[in-house]
Amino acid sequence: MVIVMQEGATEEQIQHVIDRIVASGFDVHRSTGATHTVLGAVGVHRDFDHRDFELLSGVREVVLDLGKGVKIGGPEVVVAAGPCSVESREQIHAVAEAISKAGAKIMRGGAFKPRTSPYAFQGLGEKGLQMLREAADKFGLFVVSEVMDPSQIEMMSGYVDIFQVGARNMQNYFLLRALGEVQKPVLLKRGMSATIEELLLSAEYILSGGNYNVILCERGIRTFETYLRNTLDIAAIPVIQKLSHLPIVADPSHGTGRRDKVGAMARAAVAAGADGLLIEVHNDPDHALSDGAQSLEPTQFAQLMSEIRIIAPAVGRRVA
Amino acid sequence: MVIVMQEGATEEQIQHVIDRIVASGFDVHRSTGATHTVLGAVGVHRDFDHRDFELLSGVREVVLDLGKGVKIGGPEVVVAAGPCSVESREQIHAVAEAISKAGAKIMRGGAFKPRTSPYAFQGLGEKGLQMLREAADKFGLFVVSEVMDPSQIEMMSGYVDIFQVGARNMQNYFLLRALGEVQKPVLLKRGMSATIEELLLSAEYILSGGNYNVILCERGIRTFETYLRNTLDIAAIPVIQKLSHLPIVADPSHGTGRRDKVGAMARAAVAAGADGLLIEVHNDPDHALSDGAQSLEPTQFAQLMSEIRIIAPAVGRRVA
Amino acid sequence: MVIVMQEGATEEQIQHVIDRIVASGFDVHRSTGATHTVLGAVGVHRDFDHRDFELLSGVREVVLDLGKGVKIGGPEVVVAAGPCSVESREQIHAVAEAISKAGAKIMRGGAFKPRTSPYAFQGLGEKGLQMLREAADKFGLFVVSEVMDPSQIEMMSGYVDIFQVGARNMQNYFLLRALGEVQKPVLLKRGMSATIEELLLSAEYILSGGNYNVILCERGIRTFETYLRNTLDIAAIPVIQKLSHLPIVADPSHGTGRRDKVGAMARAAVAAGADGLLIEVHNDPDHALSDGAQSLEPTQFAQLMSEIRIIAPAVGRRVA
Amino acid sequence: MVIVMQEGATEEQIQHVIDRIVASGFDVHRSTGATHTVLGAVGVHRDFDHRDFELLSGVREVVLDLGKGVKIGGPEVVVAAGPCSVESREQIHAVAEAISKAGAKIMRGGAFKPRTSPYAFQGLGEKGLQMLREAADKFGLFVVSEVMDPSQIEMMSGYVDIFQVGARNMQNYFLLRALGEVQKPVLLKRGMSATIEELLLSAEYILSGGNYNVILCERGIRTFETYLRNTLDIAAIPVIQKLSHLPIVADPSHGTGRRDKVGAMARAAVAAGADGLLIEVHNDPDHALSDGAQSLEPTQFAQLMSEIRIIAPAVGRRVA
Repeated sequence: MVIVMQEGATEEQIQHVIDRIVASGFDVHRSTGATHTVLGAVGVHRDFDHRDFELLSGVREVVLDLGKGVKIGGPEVVVAAGPCSVESREQIHAVAEAISKAGAKIMRGGAFKPRTSPYAFQGLGEKGLQMLREAADKFGLFVVSEVMDPSQIEMMSGYVDIFQVGARNMQNYFLLRALGEVQKPVLLKRGMSATIEELLLSAEYILSGGNYNVILCERGIRTFETYLRNTLDIAAIPVIQKLSHLPIVADPSHGTGRRDKVGAMARAAVAAGADGLLIEVHNDPDHALSDGAQSLEPTQFAQLMSEIRIIAPAVGRRVA
Repeated sequence: MVIVMQEGATEEQIQHVIDRIVASGFDVHRSTGATHTVLGAVGVHRDFDHRDFELLSGVREVVLDLGKGVKIGGPEVVVAAGPCSVESREQIHAVAEAISKAGAKIMRGGAFKPRTSPYAFQGLGEKGLQMLREAADKFGLFVVSEVMDPSQIEMMSGYVDIFQVGARNMQNYFLLRALGEVQKPVLLKRGMSATIEELLLSAEYILSGGNYNVILCERGIRTFETYLRNTLDIAAIPVIQKLSHLPIVADPSHGTGRRDKVGAMARAAVAAGADGLLIEVHNDPDHALSDGAQSLEPTQFAQLMSEIRIIAPAVGRRVA
Repeated sequence: MVIVMQEGATEEQIQHVIDRIVASGFDVHRSTGATHTVLGAVGVHRDFDHRDFELLSGVREVVLDLGKGVKIGGPEVVVAAGPCSVESREQIHAVAEAISKAGAKIMRGGAFKPRTSPYAFQGLGEKGLQMLREAADKFGLFVVSEVMDPSQIEMMSGYVDIFQVGARNMQNYFLLRALGEVQKPVLLKRGMSATIEELLLSAEYILSGGNYNVILCERGIRTFETYLRNTLDIAAIPVIQKLSHLPIVADPSHGTGRRDKVGAMARAAVAAGADGLLIEVHNDPDHALSDGAQSLEPTQFAQLMSEIRIIAPAVGRRVA
Repeated sequence: MVIVMQEGATEEQIQHVIDRIVASGFDVHRSTGATHTVLGAVGVHRDFDHRDFELLSGVREVVLDLGKGVKIGGPEVVVAAGPCSVESREQIHAVAEAISKAGAKIMRGGAFKPRTSPYAFQGLGEKGLQMLREAADKFGLFVVSEVMDPSQIEMMSGYVDIFQVGARNMQNYFLLRALGEVQKPVLLKRGMSATIEELLLSAEYILSGGNYNVILCERGIRTFETYLRNTLDIAAIPVIQKLSHLPIVADPSHGTGRRDKVGAMARAAVAAGADGLLIEVHNDPDHALSDGAQSLEPTQFAQLMSEIRIIAPAVGRRVA
């Protein structure tokens, strides 16, 4: 949990918040900035309510602020969208325009693709990141993209706003530790067979290094049911919100693997209280180089956005 | 699938519908009644759209009609609610009044309880069913209750409107066959480790006996994630709607086992397109003889109903 | 646990054993017969060692005695074999001769087949049981066959030595209770998604009715791994032997679903300490009416028997 | 598959083997050494029998040769043993002496420990590897130890004979690719929720880089059964032997997480045909810094070795 104190919060107010964090069983990391003091609470605890901290005197917020008014974990359900892989400048601009118009705030797109088979398309690399950044800037979007190895962090820092850690790397502790030392937010995907508790412990690897900006992501677990690629564990959303202060988003594209099921599961995630969504959108899914079968067309994405706009108020949220 | 023909449908119209059913790969059972001809289509098929049949000339409807204007599988999301077990006349009247006021149409309550341990409370039996019927009648509700053995069917027929088959009996073929010979609807719960395909094949045991009024129910599957009792497979809802014409409802009470997670999962189910919900409600959950931990209090249930009223229009549905 | 006292055991010895059973946390059912007193210990407990009771003065044995020198849970690994379904007199005699010669003591064969689809072959019924009994008698074998409903128990009692409860009925409490009132042994198969603890609690439904002759059977659980039909949980064997006094056998035929994997898993089960095996053998697997793909040919079965004869001494056991 | 040609094999013989490899659907990598030509066959195929290649004229062997007469995948079941973590010189020497005397050929021990929680003991690092090498050399053992990141490979090459890739890194493609470029064998553990097919595809990442010396390891999968830490998928052993030429070993220590179940599962693995075992042994398990609960004491390990010596002949194998 990151607690940002108000500008001009007194030392007494700060100390009171620290005491409360400690009393809740967390360790505290304090960083005193030019204008704001930020307190990081580290640890995993059952049945604690982070909203208690929002009410303390001197506290500004406990949400993850991306800038430009986009905050994850607050009243707005934030949507990230984009293709599985960056393929070309034309593709990525077309998608950026479409998703931005429909209300997405973040653009997703892979430049380094972890593929189960070594013989499949592996991504465009840095060139892909450049295209992603350029398109995102043009349409006022943030960028999230997957990092696979500590050696990529420095280069990628020039292009992305959020580092994504894929499900296969959820317990790659070398990578997690390295991300604990950067200042950018990290979107950490739940491993295919990871328990909720293990996901939270993996987040600790990042938090304990001093990077408090972690977003968790439910993307489907592996069960005996094989009709869809994974079983999206919608219940993990309210469970994680009970156990942790970290925002939790859902990825119904990987969670189902089929375009015609993405809408239903995205709506379900928002209805269950998700702080955001990660949706694959491609301007020409049938010719996508990867994951075309689970990518929405731009019009389908716009339709989905209009549906979740209806649902969000049922949980006291809104969609841009 | 049950196709009810309009009063006065011509033999030619009926034959045309039969031809279409056969062309879709189903077997057809025809029953020519005094006013209506009813066609039962039996079989499991991928990627067929039952709405095609609604457009054929002479067809009245393909939904499951309980009477008094309550139809499952149509535009209304139908909610069944009530305690895990019937415990006393006072309890059951209090619950019936509360759920009816909040918008439920069906009352649920167990008289015979399948318990994992032979030493736990096993239910009030026929006396419980009498109480359930009496309370339901007073508040204009339908009754659904679990049948465990063919020997109970005749007696129960005097009290219930819908027979429920529990998850543990999903592959009790003796029971399924016996229910294929009754005229009342059957609510068939998915077994804890049953695939969607197996659930549909179990439904076939009932349908192939001539009882076409089957409602399927997703109630959680068993996975490695043990924080909650089960993993409610929300994706099963759109998948079943693709594979079968049968209505599909969700049971978030058994699907989570925890009162504080029921609301989120009920909302998710409606957002994903469920035709109905099965919710445990108890007037005094802390003193319930069974499953108190997962029962909502009446005010929580009313709150949930108001939330799903907001959500339903996102999927073109409404809640009473 | 069934404790058979020696002929002529004194009342003091009997009372001492009862005290020890109670001290271990079990309930005791006592039946005083003409020559032997039998004590049934009912309940599930962790970390108790039933061999402690074998050492008490006056105790004869704690194993399950089928008669004619065949005991399950003692030093001999007992093998049951036979076809999935009884198909004809010729078939069943051929198989009985082959398995008896190879060392099997029990003949298995289904007369009532629980099939996932209602359209598949459902068994020969009582006629099949007659054939099974006749063939078994000719070759000195015991008979085990599946019972699916309480209404079949009386008729089947005339033909079988052991009632089998299938995986799908592990939690059919009506059936389990009815079997608690018969005197013949019951082989209870673990449900596809049942935990070990649930299997033991289902056994309690039988034991608590007064029938202490329960044999447990591991037959594969459902997991995400789908290369084989099920994942045979070999570890359940030593776990159950730690938690319960009941004998545990393994069914590698259903546990794998493929003939070419049955041998490896049967050997593994014996090496892990199984008290017995259940193996599908058919004289002409390629033309079997059910489960041909997982049935061994007689020569393969004989080969398997010779392999487990080598393995059994590694766990202090022997094979006939 | 690595096929080592005999010294002096003719070009015609070599070409014939290459043709056969290609005809079986594999790609071929040829390396012509001073004395031997080695052919690497890369790809995953169902139902191919690598023994066919052993019979071709000019072929010396298709097993993985560690040197000093130790070959994995041949008639001998090879056992690796040692502590979870290297803790001290005394510990590691005591264990090395004990396991060597009992018949182990390889010493295992972790210097870098991937722990679910960032607050747990993380290993001794290079100092631990030095101790491991020293103890192994003294007792004539090979060394296997886990590598977690490409940056460790060069340093570790000075100490280990086999690189181990842990279950959590089974799909860390950066690491796998880096290991494809080294010449030392790699022991690749199956991920907790990886299918057999995914394990084989991960092996391809190494093989396709030119390192053909890959050993697969079954170490338990995650299922709903939680009595033990994992469900050791014994059936994966014969399945993998059918699908791939790569040797497959089992790790019953991680596969069960409990010392008192290791023996049963190790025996089961050998009975099912495993090419080797990986067993945790500690001279003082109760004071181990990690995984003490699943480590055998030296006398228990010696007992286990004597048991598998009885079992191995049942599958045409032997134990040193």
